[in-house]
Amino acid sequence: MSYFRNDIDAMPPYVPGEQPQLGKFIKLNTNENPYPRSPSVDQSILAALQQGLGRYPDPLATAFRQRAAEVLQVDPDWIVCGNGSDDILTILTRSFVGHGEKIRLPYPSYILYRTLAQIQGAKWQEVSFLDDWSLGEEFSRATADLKLVFLANPNSPSGTRLSADQVMEIADRLPCPLVVDEAYVEFADSDCLSLVMQQEKIIITRSMSKSYSLAGLRFGYLVAQPQIAATISKVKDSYNCDALAIAGATAAIDDQLWLQETRGKIISTRERMSLRLRELGFHVTRSEANFVWCTGANVPLQTIYEQLKASRILVRYMEYPDWGNGLRISVGTDDQVDACLGLLETMV
Amino acid sequence: MSYFRNDIDAMPPYVPGEQPQLGKFIKLNTNENPYPRSPSVDQSILAALQQGLGRYPDPLATAFRQRAAEVLQVDPDWIVCGNGSDDILTILTRSFVGHGEKIRLPYPSYILYRTLAQIQGAKWQEVSFLDDWSLGEEFSRATADLKLVFLANPNSPSGTRLSADQVMEIADRLPCPLVVDEAYVEFADSDCLSLVMQQEKIIITRSMSKSYSLAGLRFGYLVAQPQIAATISKVKDSYNCDALAIAGATAAIDDQLWLQETRGKIISTRERMSLRLRELGFHVTRSEANFVWCTGANVPLQTIYEQLKASRILVRYMEYPDWGNGLRISVGTDDQVDACLGLLETMV
Repeated sequence: MSYFRNDIDAMPPYVPGEQPQLGKFIKLNTNENPYPRSPSVDQSILAALQQGLGRYPDPLATAFRQRAAEVLQVDPDWIVCGNGSDDILTILTRSFVGHGEKIRLPYPSYILYRTLAQIQGAKWQEVSFLDDWSLGEEFSRATADLKLVFLANPNSPSGTRLSADQVMEIADRLPCPLVVDEAYVEFADSDCLSLVMQQEKIIITRSMSKSYSLAGLRFGYLVAQPQIAATISKVKDSYNCDALAIAGATAAIDDQLWLQETRGKIISTRERMSLRLRELGFHVTRSEANFVWCTGANVPLQTIYEQLKASRILVRYMEYPDWGNGLRISVGTDDQVDACLGLLETMV
Repeated sequence: MSYFRNDIDAMPPYVPGEQPQLGKFIKLNTNENPYPRSPSVDQSILAALQQGLGRYPDPLATAFRQRAAEVLQVDPDWIVCGNGSDDILTILTRSFVGHGEKIRLPYPSYILYRTLAQIQGAKWQEVSFLDDWSLGEEFSRATADLKLVFLANPNSPSGTRLSADQVMEIADRLPCPLVVDEAYVEFADSDCLSLVMQQEKIIITRSMSKSYSLAGLRFGYLVAQPQIAATISKVKDSYNCDALAIAGATAAIDDQLWLQETRGKIISTRERMSLRLRELGFHVTRSEANFVWCTGANVPLQTIYEQLKASRILVRYMEYPDWGNGLRISVGTDDQVDACLGLLETMV
């Protein structure tokens, strides 16, 4: 006999991602930013540490919201902060979706969306991307029990992005909120932020993990119309962001020059990497993220993954049932990427 | 029309606690620890900062769990870490309680338990403490839809604690897990940790906020039998604890000498404070926490609260419907407490 909810018992056990503790690996498997964070992050964290940790942190992360509001050109009450954007996605699921109600997800995409549905006891409907990584009419179809739709934009593993016009069209047709997960958007050509002002169903989520090189700090946020943001805030833990994370994230978003420089380096490496991978015979989707999605080499992709790992380079081999497989390779530094490309040349 | 779940719409809006930003207050209202954290916390955080924040943190907080396991004399797989013990309480609610199922809570107690039930769409049953702050037979009665029971031990606002024998008796009779919330237990005479080994229904939760003076860092954990802990882990966000919090909390729990010294100071001040408040005509419950619960003065308690606040001393005035009111005063430093007692002498 189990004390747990059936939904929880039915879930597969939790398996942490591949994070080798021994030896030196080149990690191109989890889309982390290879460049060190802005130096002002450290100054801000040290100042917060000096002020003490004995008191509870600001439950509204006011400092971050004020600075982010200036950068994003919205009011602070349009912003809700979270302990990483995963926390934000959890909060959104709990805000909108009751037991037995439905969440719609694109496929293949961020695996967490399905996990969130499982934990919530919700149903989920996966709508497959079309061959050109667009989404058909089914994705925006209104049904009675549909309560939330997730859209990673840019998407993982593909790195592709729907245009703002396409996103707006989807939101207009839906009977429920559309979460546009922009975890990778700082590496894209454009974003959907301005749509939030026009359509209350659109909620943008952002992460500081990739773009600002702060995956270890756990900080994300959402942008929604203020009447939506206020109700979402009821669902979060009061003190979900700690004092050091608030301080660090505030300094990070304040340093837009750092972001532009780092973004430039990563995009330049991504383009070079995509070109070379194509020359080596891979099919490489045009990426607007900090990773590239490779399929269709002469050698089985799993073998390539294994051989790279044996040479201490980690990339992500992904196998999607009823869909296909591929290698997702994060954009590292030029040296890291060259090491990876050099090995690949010997394999294909 | 609302896109939110009815349960969420029905909740009152979120109102952050009283945290004055302007001027200098003596804060005796939120049970924070007035002493600075162990110096080793800073060393550990600085070392983690130096190692970088670009990578995702350890999802299992292995360093903390290993060190805590030694201190608590359990195996690491009995421990699950959270972003504050509030995160742990959220995870437990989601693990065990489905929509429309029931949570039992003592009353008056930690207000969050009810909020967690509301967010989860669960029913809740509040069982009032008896006059001596014990709990009657009703608290341990088995009913079909009862899926989780929360017990703050020591309790807030009373500072009282049920004995391990009483807790075991409750757990034995219950049809579901009993969460023994030991957020304040480091200030008590004893704890319920050893019960976890004997009874899989008992889950202990702990916080680093009060005892280790780390409220700003957000770190808590639970202790449960490993088969229970493993399934609970499925419900947490993968990266719910950030790299700096893991580093700081690990150093903190490693410094048991600091804990014993700080605990000694706080308990000594608490006893002196309780004595003096009784001399001033308050009824003061015997506390095993880092606060005291005062009722029954000659002057209305709300007036006392207001007058203290006007003199820049914040305490907590609490009004529990169908139960009564009181002042909950956190144990500060001797100087802070003397300032508070000095003012109270002029009022009563």
